[in-house]
Amino acid sequence: MRIVAALVGLVACTEAAASVWPIPALLTNGNSTTSIQNTLVLSSNTTAAVMKDALSRYTAIIAKEALTPPADYKLARPSAAGKLGSLAIKVGSSDETLSLETDESYTLDVPVSGEAVLSAKTVYGALRGLETFSQLIVSYGGSRFITGTPVHIEDQPVLAHRGVMLDTARNYYPVADIKRTLDAMSYNKLNVFHWHIVDAQSWPVESRSYPGLQLNSSYAADMRYSYSDVQGVISYAQARGIRVIPEFDMPGHMYVVGETYPELVSCLNKQPGWDQYAAEPPSGQLNIAKPAAAEFAMGLIGEYAKLFTDKVFHIGGDEVNRKCWEEDPDVKAYLAGNSSATVETLLADFYAKVHGAVEGKERVGMSWEETLFHSEYTPPKDTIIQTWIDEQSIPKTVAKGYRSVASPAASYYLDCGHGSWLTNHDGGSWCDPFKTWMHIYNFDPWANVTDSAQRKLIIGAEVALWSEQSDTVTLDKYMWPRAAAMAETAWSGKTDASGHVRTTGEVAQRLHNQRFRMVGRGIGAEPLQPLWCARNPGGCFLPTS
Amino acid sequence: MRIVAALVGLVACTEAAASVWPIPALLTNGNSTTSIQNTLVLSSNTTAAVMKDALSRYTAIIAKEALTPPADYKLARPSAAGKLGSLAIKVGSSDETLSLETDESYTLDVPVSGEAVLSAKTVYGALRGLETFSQLIVSYGGSRFITGTPVHIEDQPVLAHRGVMLDTARNYYPVADIKRTLDAMSYNKLNVFHWHIVDAQSWPVESRSYPGLQLNSSYAADMRYSYSDVQGVISYAQARGIRVIPEFDMPGHMYVVGETYPELVSCLNKQPGWDQYAAEPPSGQLNIAKPAAAEFAMGLIGEYAKLFTDKVFHIGGDEVNRKCWEEDPDVKAYLAGNSSATVETLLADFYAKVHGAVEGKERVGMSWEETLFHSEYTPPKDTIIQTWIDEQSIPKTVAKGYRSVASPAASYYLDCGHGSWLTNHDGGSWCDPFKTWMHIYNFDPWANVTDSAQRKLIIGAEVALWSEQSDTVTLDKYMWPRAAAMAETAWSGKTDASGHVRTTGEVAQRLHNQRFRMVGRGIGAEPLQPLWCARNPGGCFLPTS
Repeated sequence: MRIVAALVGLVACTEAAASVWPIPALLTNGNSTTSIQNTLVLSSNTTAAVMKDALSRYTAIIAKEALTPPADYKLARPSAAGKLGSLAIKVGSSDETLSLETDESYTLDVPVSGEAVLSAKTVYGALRGLETFSQLIVSYGGSRFITGTPVHIEDQPVLAHRGVMLDTARNYYPVADIKRTLDAMSYNKLNVFHWHIVDAQSWPVESRSYPGLQLNSSYAADMRYSYSDVQGVISYAQARGIRVIPEFDMPGHMYVVGETYPELVSCLNKQPGWDQYAAEPPSGQLNIAKPAAAEFAMGLIGEYAKLFTDKVFHIGGDEVNRKCWEEDPDVKAYLAGNSSATVETLLADFYAKVHGAVEGKERVGMSWEETLFHSEYTPPKDTIIQTWIDEQSIPKTVAKGYRSVASPAASYYLDCGHGSWLTNHDGGSWCDPFKTWMHIYNFDPWANVTDSAQRKLIIGAEVALWSEQSDTVTLDKYMWPRAAAMAETAWSGKTDASGHVRTTGEVAQRLHNQRFRMVGRGIGAEPLQPLWCARNPGGCFLPTS
Repeated sequence: MRIVAALVGLVACTEAAASVWPIPALLTNGNSTTSIQNTLVLSSNTTAAVMKDALSRYTAIIAKEALTPPADYKLARPSAAGKLGSLAIKVGSSDETLSLETDESYTLDVPVSGEAVLSAKTVYGALRGLETFSQLIVSYGGSRFITGTPVHIEDQPVLAHRGVMLDTARNYYPVADIKRTLDAMSYNKLNVFHWHIVDAQSWPVESRSYPGLQLNSSYAADMRYSYSDVQGVISYAQARGIRVIPEFDMPGHMYVVGETYPELVSCLNKQPGWDQYAAEPPSGQLNIAKPAAAEFAMGLIGEYAKLFTDKVFHIGGDEVNRKCWEEDPDVKAYLAGNSSATVETLLADFYAKVHGAVEGKERVGMSWEETLFHSEYTPPKDTIIQTWIDEQSIPKTVAKGYRSVASPAASYYLDCGHGSWLTNHDGGSWCDPFKTWMHIYNFDPWANVTDSAQRKLIIGAEVALWSEQSDTVTLDKYMWPRAAAMAETAWSGKTDASGHVRTTGEVAQRLHNQRFRMVGRGIGAEPLQPLWCARNPGGCFLPTS
């Protein structure tokens, strides 16, 4: 009875706090209801392009917002104590630089009547506040209101890097899919699009240094990303306060390079025994015994560090297979002639070159955890380590003094739970089961990290959609609203101001609201439950006593 | 090496047999290639409405067919030895009766040049042949061909009932979704739409006998099925050779009736301890101690046996909870006054009344397996038993002399593998894991049934999509192409003519073709693999040695 009783308050009416996802750091509100004038005007004290674009975008979003929270489906149109005619946005600077250090804080005041005021130090903080403002608006009887006015919000994120990774190589996604994903990310205050743009299976992105890569290994002429496409994605993202971090995963996952440069790649598509040489077919790794392979890798970094403008550049480094090299004739010949060399020293030399190339381009390197934990190489101290294999890799990373972005497969891999995709295999996959939104929500990136300096090294969280079993048809359903569950952890942390760890039971109605809001905005987010449950808070709990 | 070598033949060219899903009983073909004239004319010797509609439908489908099998992505436009200008359809009867007994056989001959001929005893056999004909057509270099001509096909289904169940009560699906599902079913020669139209959570369908059911318990005014909608679905289905079997699930799953008639329902929405009274919330069963509840049930059957025209009428009977009644005051009072009565005799009496009502309307009853195995009632011998709990229920059903439709949850429940949907539950669900297409394909409905008379009692197979975690946003990806995997078992059986059990490795390329064909026809079927795998047959096998 306890849980249901605690939630009864939500049944009566959805108040401001129940509408915003992720939940703001501080929200106080009154008991009045304010109607939104159809002529609501958004204005700002800056003419920065990002803000101009956002005013136009949010004017349209707000004009169309028709969300009635499902739990309020029987509520009649309320009587309003006042009218809101405008939102004034005050930004401290018109600088449009977007980076890991960008201040995203904002304050928002919505009075019972008159003009709401949004204040932020940066245009990107203002974007976050605009999203919050748009989420305060609910619809009853065809009219729009903000309930629980006056509302006062002070908000800022807990983590600076709040990301979504999309693999566009196993299967291709049109640019429109990526832009829709960026829209959806902005609705959840996510700020990093980690573009796992190439992999063993295809090379969709244009290369001007190595044009054969795209020409030979994109899936089709209409399954490519041109320079112009990439620049369009980056500017679309920046307009939403989202950084684009590209990943060129090396030295593993490089079969695709062998389609153009077979001489640079070891264990090229070993069949049928690919499982001895790679995590999945087709096998192939850059040949670490060949200087030309490292030069190729450095050339790629040189080219793409110009195309991709973010300070952070991801060079992969996951799932490297030793046997691939141990059996390679060139590697064997090199080792035979260099008695102090081993596969491990060759790999460390390779990493030194590619991380050096990243530094040479004044970029900060980012890599999967294996580079730190499963190689003899010591990455530069500013390298951002993305952990995925083990949740304990997070405390281990920060204990070594590195910054960590948490992407544990056991909690944050959105593709898991779909069983095997190997043609002849009637069985599961290594990362089953499916990660429910509750499981994602309950993951704590700070678990087992108590030292405050180490906790600060946990700079981010990222969900990942690997695309072996996903393409344009399935993208939204895999991504949403589960990425939103992570987004609240990343923006709001695990606890409220009193230190109470939020539970899925407490936040479910807000997430229902967010799911239906996203569907209303054109995102194909999957349903969490029968609509009956969304309408009857507390009605679909597993009894715990 | 064995498996890959065996598949190499598929790489060279996709021949007719590689294009048709489900695979025909007999297909012989030559080595020629025939081009399809843009002016291809379909004609028939009957003016039956079903055929007239099909000619127009398939003319459009064929005109738009642009499937290039993924494994053929590098093939140039072939040179054709002849041209196909027409398809003549010869039907033995213009009778449009559609039932479990309808003959769906056909023969199809496609010559190298000239006119193809499709012959069938019934218009529905002709529909199946038309679908096969449309699937022979592939596109290279923007032109359409049939490869491997002349083609001769003799085909008929192994199972008479090849179904898809959709639950439209946990979450609602617009009529357009149902019609699109019927389209997709026709592309896979499926012939039964089992409409699980109401359940505890909502009552979307109009009732003229009990109008409050829909008015009070549909989710919204725009989330309803009117009589006209239902009639539209039935006629749309019939035009595609698909029967519509409605299910009104009783006496369990009836909370929804209690929203209008609380006096007819026991254990109405027990909270928070619903798990003592029902498989999922909200709890509620028709009160078997009350004659009015049985009369209500018989009234429903009376009404809907008029609206739904198929001979078979499904009355549910699954997941009945004894405690719900044992604690019901009316049941307790009745039992106190009737010393020979028990909950089991009351339930058997209830079943006798509702099965009697079905017989009274000259319908054949269909029910979930519990009625046969977990009650003291003996259903009429013509009742079709749908098994789901245990795969061994199929041999048990036919050993008792009943006809069986196989829907084992462990293989055929399409919603499984999505984890718990209970608000506060960070865990799995009873029917995890996800059923991959390979798992579905490998299920054998005839396992452990050797007696030939008993094997004939296995009349059908049905996949089921329960909608706790699905709605209009996710329908297609849950359903397709996995329902197609079942469709091949149901149409073609488990073995080829030589008795060889087909393996997923052998059929994967055809299923890729079918998936891309369906996407081309507007069905959001999910991808099976990276496109690289679809293009490189044998490249994504799990090594078995």
